[in-house]
Amino acid sequence: MNNREDCVAADRQDPLAHFKDRFDLPAGVLYMDGNSLGVLPRTAAGRAAQVISQEWGNGLIRSWNSAGWFDLPARLGDKLGGLLGAKAGELVVTDTTSLNIFKALAAALKIQQDRHPTRRIILSERDNFPTDLYMVQGLIDLLQQGYEMRLADDDLPLEQALDETVAVVLLSHVNYRSGAMHDMAAVTNQAHACGALTLWDLAHSAGAVPVDLSAAGADFAVGCTYKYLNGGPGSPAFIWVAPQHVKDFQQPLSGWWGHQRPFDMATRYEPAQGIRRYMCGSQPMVSLALVECGLDIALEAGTSAVRQKSLALGDLFIRLVEQRCGGHPLELATPCEHSRRGSHVSFLHPEGYAVMQALIARGVIGDYREPQILRFGLTPLYFGYADLWDAVEILKEVLDSKAWDKPEFKQRNAVT
Amino acid sequence: MNNREDCVAADRQDPLAHFKDRFDLPAGVLYMDGNSLGVLPRTAAGRAAQVISQEWGNGLIRSWNSAGWFDLPARLGDKLGGLLGAKAGELVVTDTTSLNIFKALAAALKIQQDRHPTRRIILSERDNFPTDLYMVQGLIDLLQQGYEMRLADDDLPLEQALDETVAVVLLSHVNYRSGAMHDMAAVTNQAHACGALTLWDLAHSAGAVPVDLSAAGADFAVGCTYKYLNGGPGSPAFIWVAPQHVKDFQQPLSGWWGHQRPFDMATRYEPAQGIRRYMCGSQPMVSLALVECGLDIALEAGTSAVRQKSLALGDLFIRLVEQRCGGHPLELATPCEHSRRGSHVSFLHPEGYAVMQALIARGVIGDYREPQILRFGLTPLYFGYADLWDAVEILKEVLDSKAWDKPEFKQRNAVT
Repeated sequence: MNNREDCVAADRQDPLAHFKDRFDLPAGVLYMDGNSLGVLPRTAAGRAAQVISQEWGNGLIRSWNSAGWFDLPARLGDKLGGLLGAKAGELVVTDTTSLNIFKALAAALKIQQDRHPTRRIILSERDNFPTDLYMVQGLIDLLQQGYEMRLADDDLPLEQALDETVAVVLLSHVNYRSGAMHDMAAVTNQAHACGALTLWDLAHSAGAVPVDLSAAGADFAVGCTYKYLNGGPGSPAFIWVAPQHVKDFQQPLSGWWGHQRPFDMATRYEPAQGIRRYMCGSQPMVSLALVECGLDIALEAGTSAVRQKSLALGDLFIRLVEQRCGGHPLELATPCEHSRRGSHVSFLHPEGYAVMQALIARGVIGDYREPQILRFGLTPLYFGYADLWDAVEILKEVLDSKAWDKPEFKQRNAVT
Repeated sequence: MNNREDCVAADRQDPLAHFKDRFDLPAGVLYMDGNSLGVLPRTAAGRAAQVISQEWGNGLIRSWNSAGWFDLPARLGDKLGGLLGAKAGELVVTDTTSLNIFKALAAALKIQQDRHPTRRIILSERDNFPTDLYMVQGLIDLLQQGYEMRLADDDLPLEQALDETVAVVLLSHVNYRSGAMHDMAAVTNQAHACGALTLWDLAHSAGAVPVDLSAAGADFAVGCTYKYLNGGPGSPAFIWVAPQHVKDFQQPLSGWWGHQRPFDMATRYEPAQGIRRYMCGSQPMVSLALVECGLDIALEAGTSAVRQKSLALGDLFIRLVEQRCGGHPLELATPCEHSRRGSHVSFLHPEGYAVMQALIARGVIGDYREPQILRFGLTPLYFGYADLWDAVEILKEVLDSKAWDKPEFKQRNAVT
């Protein structure tokens, strides 16, 4: 594809092209930030109206039974599990990614206390998403049991950092900044060979890249539903636990919804037999219900077709930016190799923040991450080849004209 | 008021009567479960449509700044704080009540480690809401530092249970079962005299009874927004911390939103200077935004008028039930004394579950709580004196005719 016409032709051949109609996209926008917040499924407004007017307004408290509120986290979990190589009854949609990391990590450390009681290292990566590291720190500080976080980085590669002092390995499957993807099965095997358990953060994977938790032999996974799954702003997250760990899974955020018989109103906590034990308190039903709208589209499209187009978009984006913006100080931060790439592409630019603001002002919405990173999400369900061509043309224009070099684009927003 | 006409006349005099029009109430229902799930404000559907179509659909990621998503938990917190005797910047709407208990309790224990390092008792009540006790147990089991939960009950009254081994007192201001209310200032004083800190659960207080956290000298408070505040099913909860504790407030659920500079993407967690440090991960924006609809109504009505009517309704309900259903094995479980009563009234009945199901089948929606408790919520914003008269008549009919004595009413639902 070397001109816009080629891209238009590719869109015409694209078996996923028709999914764009399932979403309400704003006019005049080329949206390349679906890796941060997904777009609005056309069914969401109607579903919200139904939950609000019928289930809440009319059903009121009866909807816990009649509208299936009590079963909703598990029912959505079963659907989502189908995208991630999990069986029914293994995954639940609840709380936030941060909280689910806390639960899974605490449970994993407890399991390791029996298996390898002296291990005190939680291994992650320096460039993992900060909240993952913050949750580790919060748990370590709380426990005061000598746990330490070890961070793999350029000086200490992951394989080298992984040794027999490691209790748990916490990794993002796809890196939020670079878009680099781990080989989940290979890393899990390495970890298991050392006696470590694995906790995978699938925030940038779910709905974007093929994931098979069972085949990879993973131990625990968490992730979010508001990025590639288009669940809505801050929609509840998910947690998965491998079947062999369920019985030993003890998590400290032991609220009423995780109780075996919550309506006995017993004073002693007794964890539910199954996945409800990963839950804690009451869930925000309107936001939770909306998760299903995006999820149904993802299930219909299938991960394989999405992945194929995502890689084709990524290859094209890298090639076009390098060809058409070659004279500018852009440095590719994302692996080219398909097996190592997620579904966004990042470039470093010394004035990355201002460049992104100038792009957004022209309707190309990506985002900026410290330091210097321009992130461009590739979302095959609603982003096409001609969209990509147009976005690169606008990037070229912004760079060629130095349109970014204005005070208003250098002024930081509260949320970047 | 000794007949329905008196009640109709009282409704005509009621300065809060017009607030009923602010809500969408289902036809044919006398709703007495607003203490469990509040009703639907008429503005909620429109607000949801706005958040979904404009903020999410059109604004997309830009809405974190342009629609004020990032500031919403604190902005709602300021409004809610006005109802609870808190100043602006002291309270934040976020996460769930259970999680906020975990945060506040962990932070309180940490503060006490400096002040009274040997104290290991967390004092609560045996009939406190179970999730409160479960969260205490989860934290104790996680810490493995010798903490124990002590439960006050009939055999061990609270005043006796409170001694100089107690680090933190965790109490529900209004009991979920009996509707009994503590004197927050008096108990806080007693606790402070022993060197203990207080954590108040306001789930059944916020929007229902007068609360002045500052005047009471309380240390920490949490509560929910989906009961008397009509925030919607599972709407986010709140947490308040007394100003003198903010600087020392270290909570273990240290997610990105609680970071001082979340968009620096630093690897080390650094708690925000103010109330954002009580937050953890991404909040469910649609459910969160809806909190404002009910909150605005509560602020407009004012706690004082609500309290006055709530007590009048409670007095009338107790009197009418005792007069008209006197021959049946009903036992009042709620204190008559105004200063000791919240905003629901409970009666014990040996067949409480079936009686409540029969009531619900006739449109009188209260709820049942183990053991034997029929709960009737009194919600002055949308429940009137004639409603109350009608509800008692239906209760009388159910009891007189033994309408509850049917298999379908004894069959337990998943959620009771």
